[in-house]
Amino acid sequence: MYRTHTCGELNANNIGETVSIAGWAQTIRDKGPIVWIDVRDRYGMTQIVGETGRVRDEILTTLKGIGREFVLQVTGEVVERHSKNPDIPTGDIEIVVSEIKILNGAKTPPFTIEDETDGGEELRMQYRYLDLRRNPVRKNLELRHKLSIETRKYMDSINFLEVETPYLIKSTPEGARDFVVPSRMNPGEFYALPQSPQTFKQLLMVSGYDRYYQIVKCFRDEDLRADRQPEFTQIDCEMAFVEQEDVLNTFEGLTKSLFKTILNVELDNFPRMDYVEAMEKYGSDKPDVRFGMEFKNLNSVAQNKGFNVFDSAEIVLGIVAEQAATYTRKQLDKLTDFVKRPQVGAKGMVYVKCNEDGTFKSSVDKFYSQEDLKAWADLADAKAGDLILVLSGDLDATRKQMNELRLHMGSELGLRNPADYKPLWVVDFPLLEWDEDSERYHAMHHPFTSPKAEDFDKLESAPGEVRANAYDLVINGVEIGGGSIRIHDKALQARMFDLLGFTPEEAKAQFGFLMDAFEYGAPPHGGIAFGFDRLCATLAGQESIRDFIAFPKNNSGRDVMIDAPAPIDGEQMKELFLNSTAERTEA
Amino acid sequence: MYRTHTCGELNANNIGETVSIAGWAQTIRDKGPIVWIDVRDRYGMTQIVGETGRVRDEILTTLKGIGREFVLQVTGEVVERHSKNPDIPTGDIEIVVSEIKILNGAKTPPFTIEDETDGGEELRMQYRYLDLRRNPVRKNLELRHKLSIETRKYMDSINFLEVETPYLIKSTPEGARDFVVPSRMNPGEFYALPQSPQTFKQLLMVSGYDRYYQIVKCFRDEDLRADRQPEFTQIDCEMAFVEQEDVLNTFEGLTKSLFKTILNVELDNFPRMDYVEAMEKYGSDKPDVRFGMEFKNLNSVAQNKGFNVFDSAEIVLGIVAEQAATYTRKQLDKLTDFVKRPQVGAKGMVYVKCNEDGTFKSSVDKFYSQEDLKAWADLADAKAGDLILVLSGDLDATRKQMNELRLHMGSELGLRNPADYKPLWVVDFPLLEWDEDSERYHAMHHPFTSPKAEDFDKLESAPGEVRANAYDLVINGVEIGGGSIRIHDKALQARMFDLLGFTPEEAKAQFGFLMDAFEYGAPPHGGIAFGFDRLCATLAGQESIRDFIAFPKNNSGRDVMIDAPAPIDGEQMKELFLNSTAERTEA
Repeated sequence: MYRTHTCGELNANNIGETVSIAGWAQTIRDKGPIVWIDVRDRYGMTQIVGETGRVRDEILTTLKGIGREFVLQVTGEVVERHSKNPDIPTGDIEIVVSEIKILNGAKTPPFTIEDETDGGEELRMQYRYLDLRRNPVRKNLELRHKLSIETRKYMDSINFLEVETPYLIKSTPEGARDFVVPSRMNPGEFYALPQSPQTFKQLLMVSGYDRYYQIVKCFRDEDLRADRQPEFTQIDCEMAFVEQEDVLNTFEGLTKSLFKTILNVELDNFPRMDYVEAMEKYGSDKPDVRFGMEFKNLNSVAQNKGFNVFDSAEIVLGIVAEQAATYTRKQLDKLTDFVKRPQVGAKGMVYVKCNEDGTFKSSVDKFYSQEDLKAWADLADAKAGDLILVLSGDLDATRKQMNELRLHMGSELGLRNPADYKPLWVVDFPLLEWDEDSERYHAMHHPFTSPKAEDFDKLESAPGEVRANAYDLVINGVEIGGGSIRIHDKALQARMFDLLGFTPEEAKAQFGFLMDAFEYGAPPHGGIAFGFDRLCATLAGQESIRDFIAFPKNNSGRDVMIDAPAPIDGEQMKELFLNSTAERTEA
Repeated sequence: MYRTHTCGELNANNIGETVSIAGWAQTIRDKGPIVWIDVRDRYGMTQIVGETGRVRDEILTTLKGIGREFVLQVTGEVVERHSKNPDIPTGDIEIVVSEIKILNGAKTPPFTIEDETDGGEELRMQYRYLDLRRNPVRKNLELRHKLSIETRKYMDSINFLEVETPYLIKSTPEGARDFVVPSRMNPGEFYALPQSPQTFKQLLMVSGYDRYYQIVKCFRDEDLRADRQPEFTQIDCEMAFVEQEDVLNTFEGLTKSLFKTILNVELDNFPRMDYVEAMEKYGSDKPDVRFGMEFKNLNSVAQNKGFNVFDSAEIVLGIVAEQAATYTRKQLDKLTDFVKRPQVGAKGMVYVKCNEDGTFKSSVDKFYSQEDLKAWADLADAKAGDLILVLSGDLDATRKQMNELRLHMGSELGLRNPADYKPLWVVDFPLLEWDEDSERYHAMHHPFTSPKAEDFDKLESAPGEVRANAYDLVINGVEIGGGSIRIHDKALQARMFDLLGFTPEEAKAQFGFLMDAFEYGAPPHGGIAFGFDRLCATLAGQESIRDFIAFPKNNSGRDVMIDAPAPIDGEQMKELFLNSTAERTEA
C-alpha cells in the first residue's frame, strides 16, 4: 500500500489524521525555510509542506531536491491551510511531511504539464505519455470512458447483446481500401482488417440474435485528411424485424440518454428531414440546424436582367444574414475572399444590403434597380437591416459553396453555440451515386442497403433516382452516425450487386456466404453505426477527434511515439512468403 | 413494427389480446384440419395454431406450406392451450392465427437447429450463422455479453478507466510471432497487431491514469493447438502505486463479484501458493485444487532396494487414490496405458494396493517386502483401501507425467465437479527460464516483470533462481489470468534486457520509447490480464473456448464460413510494395 488517500479527497474533515499520498510534483515553491509542493494524481492535487522546526532537517533537504514531475510518496499530518484555495476540493488543507520517499526522479519534461502547454503538436505526439498527463487530455479520455460505459448500460437495458466479431476477415474491393494481414499458415493468402463488422452483424440477424451491438475498432487504409485516423471506433448496431422508424426511435433513445447522463442536457425529439430538402435548403446532407439562413432560389428575380453571370448560371442562391447590413466594405471583401479560397471555390460573391431606411445597396447595382432588389429581398424574406449574400453557378458546386458560406456566417454571427445541441435525422438518401472515374454506380451507403419499395420500378429505368432506406444522425452539422434497412432477400441482393457492376461470379466470391445465409431464413433487419470518436468530440463541444484518442496516428498514419510502422526483419518476410519491392531507406 | 411481443413473453395474462409476433418456424405439426407451429426467436418459443372453421381457409393453406426455419410474422388472438406445456414460460397459451406473412422462406438447413444437433464440427463452422441459432451456442454468447457488462460495471465502480489502445503498432521479436500489416503510405514498413497492450498500459501508468482496464482483442501468429485462436480477447488491467498484494486483492474482488453476479456462487478468499510448492505438490503451475492427491516423494523408501528403475531415477513420486484399492487388473492396465500415451510419456507405472486387511499388493512385489510397502504407505499417508500410484524418472518429466495422472484419476474418481470452483493464486514465479534452443534466458512472464527485491543479488550470479513479482490466477486447474509488478526504473529495465540477450541498441530500437518514458516520472505499477474467452468457458463449466466465440477460426487459422484468408489482387500487392513468393494454388 503506497497511499491511504488519493490526491483529490482530503479536506477539512481529515484535519488531524496521519495520511499517505502518492503522485507527481506539479509545482514547487521553495521559500528558504519553508517549501510547498503540489502533489498531483489523476484525482486531484494536494499541497504538502515542510518547514524548519516543523519537519526533520533531512526532510526539508529532500523536499528541496525535488524537481517537476518527480514521483513522490508522502506521509504526514493533515492540517488546516493558512491561505486557503477555494478553487480546488483539497484547498482547505495541506500535509505536514513526516516521511517522504522519492519513488522515481524525472528529467525536465520537454513541455509544461499544464492546461495550456507550450509544447507544439509534434512534440506532444512524440511524448504522448506526458501530453496525456495534462488535465484537458485526461478529461477527454475520462469522457470517452464514461460514454462507452453509459452506451453499454443503455444498450444492455434494451436487450442488445454485445457480440465480438472477428478482426481477421476477408478483403473486399468494394468501398475503401483494406488493411491486409499476410497469413503465414496459408501461404500467399491474406486476411483483411474490417472496415466495419457489416456482414457479420447481418449474419447475426440471420442467426436470430435480434439486437446486436458492439463498440469496435474499424480500419480504413485511406489517404488521411486532417482528423481521419486509420483505426477508429464505432458503436455498431443491428436489429431484426424493424422498419426505418423503429431504428430511428431506438437510437434517438440512446442519444437522448447519453446527452442526459453525460451532459445533463434534455434533447427534444429529433426532426426528420429528407435528403432532397437538406440539399435544397442547406446544400449539405449534414446541415447545422442550430440556425436558419436557409438557401433561397433567386433565379426568378435575378435572371434575365442583363447580368450575364447570373443569366448563364444554373442556379442563383441567396442566404439572409440577419442584421448584418452594417457589414463594412472590408468585412464584405473578406467574405468574398473566403468564398474564393480554393477549398470553397466560388468565382465571386454578390451582396445586397437591406438598409434600415428601406433602400438597397448591392454590388450589382448597375444591373438591378431598387425595385429589382426589393423583389430579391421579398423572395428571400430579408428585412430592413439584413444582408443578402448571393452565389451562382452549377447546382452542385453552388450548393457546396453556399453551405461553406452559410456555416462561416453562422460562426461569425455567433449562431453556432457549442453548448446548443440540435440533432436531426436526414433520411431518404439516394441508393446510388454515379462515379465518373469508374463510369458506374456506387452504393451511396453500402451494397447491402435496401431501396425504398415504392422506387423498385426505377431500379433499371432510373437507378440514380432510387431512394434508399438510409439515414444519418446529424448533430450541429456533424455526421454522428448512419445506417440503413438492409436487403434480406437473395434475389434483390443479387440485383443490387448487378447494378453495382459485380459479375455473379465476383458477387459469389466476395459475398457468397451472405447470399447463402439469406436462403436459410433471413429476417428483415437494419442498423446503424455511430462514429464513437466523433461522438466523444461532439459531446465535448470540440472538433478534433484526435484529442479523444489516447494514442492517435499522424497524417502519414505513423505513431511517432513508438515509431510505427517500421521495417520487419528478413526472416519474418520469408515466413510470410513476401518480398518487398520498396526501396529501403533504412536497414 | 413487425411485432407487439417477442416469442418469449406471452402467458395466461395475455389471453384475449390480439398480438403480433415474428420469428422462425421451429417445429410444424400438420394434423390435417389443424396445424400447429412453434415460432422461435431469441427470447423463446410461442405456439401458433390454425384450424378449419377457426381460421380462414387461405391461412390454413399458408400454414401448410411453411417449412422449417421459414421467417414468419403472425397476428392473432392469444387463447388458452388445451394441452399445456409446463416446461416453457409461454406453455399455457397459443395464438390463433388471423394474419400470417411469410417474411422469408428457408432451404432445409444442413443440420438440425436443436440443442443436440446432427451436424458435425466442420459443417457447423461452415454454416456458423445457423449453428449460432442453437440454444447452447446462443446461451454461451449471452453469458459472454453478461460477463463483459458486469466486468465493466465492476471496474468502473472501483475507478478503473477503460482506455482504447492502438491495434496498429510495432513488431517486436520478443515473445510469440506477430501478425503484421504492410503500410501503403510507408513503403517497406509494417505495423504489427498487438499480442497485448502491454507497453501502452505501462505508458498510461507513466501518464498518471492510475487504474486502467480494457476488454481488448489480442493477436498471436502461433501454430494453433486445439483451442487456441489467432485472435483472442483479454481483460487487460494495470494499476499504479501498488504492490503485489494490492493487485491480487483487487482482482480477487473482481472475480468474486463476477461469480456472484453471474452464477450466484460465493467464493471463499483465494489461497496463495508459491510456484515451488505448486510444482512439488502438483507438478503444475496451475494445479486443480478441487481435490488433494498431492505428490509424495518416495525416494527414501523406494530407492536402494534393488529395483533398478527407481534406483536410477532422479525422483520417485507417488499419489494416493483414496478407496481405489479395489481397482481391477484391467483398470490398472488402462492407467498404465494412459501414462504411456505419447502425450504423457511415462515408461510405465507402479501401483500399490493397500488392502483392507492391512496387506499390500504391488506390481513390484518381488523387489519390496510387505514392510517396505508399509513404509511407502506411511510416507504417502495412504490408508487401508487406498491405491498408491507411482511414477519415476527425471524430476521435470516425472512431475509433468504425474500431473496428468493425478488429473486423470481426479476425473475418474469424480473429484472434479464443474460446479465446484476452487480459485488459487500461484505466486513467486521464476523471473527467467533457460531456453535450450537459443541458449539464453527468456522472460517467463515478459521482459517488463520485476524481480523480487530480495533476489536482486542473484541477477548476475544465479539468474535462474531469481523469483519474480509475478502471479497467476488459477481456477480448477485452468489459468484464468496472469500478471506482474513491472519494472519502473530505467536502469533495472536495461539490466533486464541485457540478461535477455538484447544489445543496448536492440533494446533502444524496440523499447526506447518505454525506457525514455521511465525517465520522466514513472510510478511503481503492476497489472494483470485475464483470458476472457477462457473465463467465459470456466464460468460455464466448459473446456473449449471456441464455443464462446461467435465466429471462431479453425486449427489452420481459417474462417471456413467466409473463406478467409484469401489471395488479394495484384493491384493491391503492388500498392503495398509486395511480391508473393508463395506458389499460388489458385488465381
